[in-house]
Amino acid sequence: MPHFKITLAYDGTPYHGWQLQPGLATVQATLADALFRIVGEKVLPQGSGRTDTGVHALGQVASVTLAAPIPADRLHRALNHCLPNSIRVLAVEAVDERFHARHSAVSKTYEYRIFSVAYQICAPTMAPFVWPCLWNLALDALNQAAAHVIGTHDFTALAASPASPEDAPASYVRTITHSRWHEEGDLILYRVASNGFLHHMVRNLVGTFVQCGAGRRDPDTIPALITSRDRSQCGPTAPASGLFLVSVDYPALDSLSERPAAEMAIEG
Amino acid sequence: MPHFKITLAYDGTPYHGWQLQPGLATVQATLADALFRIVGEKVLPQGSGRTDTGVHALGQVASVTLAAPIPADRLHRALNHCLPNSIRVLAVEAVDERFHARHSAVSKTYEYRIFSVAYQICAPTMAPFVWPCLWNLALDALNQAAAHVIGTHDFTALAASPASPEDAPASYVRTITHSRWHEEGDLILYRVASNGFLHHMVRNLVGTFVQCGAGRRDPDTIPALITSRDRSQCGPTAPASGLFLVSVDYPALDSLSERPAAEMAIEG
Repeated sequence: MPHFKITLAYDGTPYHGWQLQPGLATVQATLADALFRIVGEKVLPQGSGRTDTGVHALGQVASVTLAAPIPADRLHRALNHCLPNSIRVLAVEAVDERFHARHSAVSKTYEYRIFSVAYQICAPTMAPFVWPCLWNLALDALNQAAAHVIGTHDFTALAASPASPEDAPASYVRTITHSRWHEEGDLILYRVASNGFLHHMVRNLVGTFVQCGAGRRDPDTIPALITSRDRSQCGPTAPASGLFLVSVDYPALDSLSERPAAEMAIEG
Repeated sequence: MPHFKITLAYDGTPYHGWQLQPGLATVQATLADALFRIVGEKVLPQGSGRTDTGVHALGQVASVTLAAPIPADRLHRALNHCLPNSIRVLAVEAVDERFHARHSAVSKTYEYRIFSVAYQICAPTMAPFVWPCLWNLALDALNQAAAHVIGTHDFTALAASPASPEDAPASYVRTITHSRWHEEGDLILYRVASNGFLHHMVRNLVGTFVQCGAGRRDPDTIPALITSRDRSQCGPTAPASGLFLVSVDYPALDSLSERPAAEMAIEG
């Protein structure tokens, strides 16, 4: 049975997040509905992870197995024909059946976009895709704070409280490999890459860094915040509208065209 | 009593158009609600005209009289504080009480934005603000067609049918002073200026021009379409998402800072 890796971009504004929720418009449900209309199969594509209500994606990844022998390029075109304009499929690849969008992922990159409205008006056409932030932010202080989270840490202080004990992750330890702010035109952008993210982690990092950028918190208090493991010490959760899931990284073995060296050797 | 001209931009996506409708989110109702929260007065700001559900504005104009002696700059700041990010006030001016956003208007300019998806994918962050059009469009043919509507014509063939006889305009004659397409990056843009527009007129013009641009209609059939006054001959109504009200023009007398010569003479 053909197994696919689907890379997609979406505007999170009209959706109650990625995850299927009965009676609500979600990205996963909309994708499942499009697949049903194309091949007549009730399947639930697995995402690399959930995105919350209003959070966008430039490169979310989903995996799905279909019974129908549909070629990847035809599935790609059919999906973009059936999906609303708020969801676009960027790529469809036939992959090894061991590939799973969530379990196979080794790293993810998020971007957070801030438009500083201290001295200007944020165009309504831009507002759904940024945080129109009231403060004037100092890039130096933002980066001084952001550098402190690189490495392997217990991020309990920067994660949302679990809704119930069974929703709690097995571990709050994550390894951040990139954490940097830069300016691009009118926007102040934060890029962060990690082997995984806790719920609200990027938005809590941004809310905390912005306090530093606005001169309301010393950037060098970040290490103590992390070691405290105390959620009440972190900044407010930044709005969903500014957050984009940029990309999900997988090891090469997950692509049929780049099979692991061992298999290649047997064939060779 | 202070009388104000309010210039505003909005993302029409979350609104059921400009006009107040009980139980629905509209731009006029949202603006009235913000004014109520600021000055405690139940007033209905008058717009230069209605915009339909999903149609955007870069420079809609409204007029309103308040009892409160609030300065224009304070009202401007307070409105942007109270309004959602999807509506931004660009300017507030104290004007002569004779100024009326609709009755005083002498000309309006609209822009229609098309993203041609013939060979590419329209980013979901752009989709709410364009028509992601399936055809490959020839700029020459678009402009050959667009030139035919300049001048004074009866635009019955390009107006929506009135919902009821009492909704019919007194006249379908309008004077178009500018009608031109141009390319800007990935977008194909249409600008049109007129002393007034009928319901769906810009979207029907665009739907008809696009037929010409796609090679499905001869641009030189436009004069015959106009004289036919037959709605069934015009193209399909283009989607609301691509339409922006750009600006509304008024004669100088409507601004308090530029009073008519007669008054100036008495003072001088």
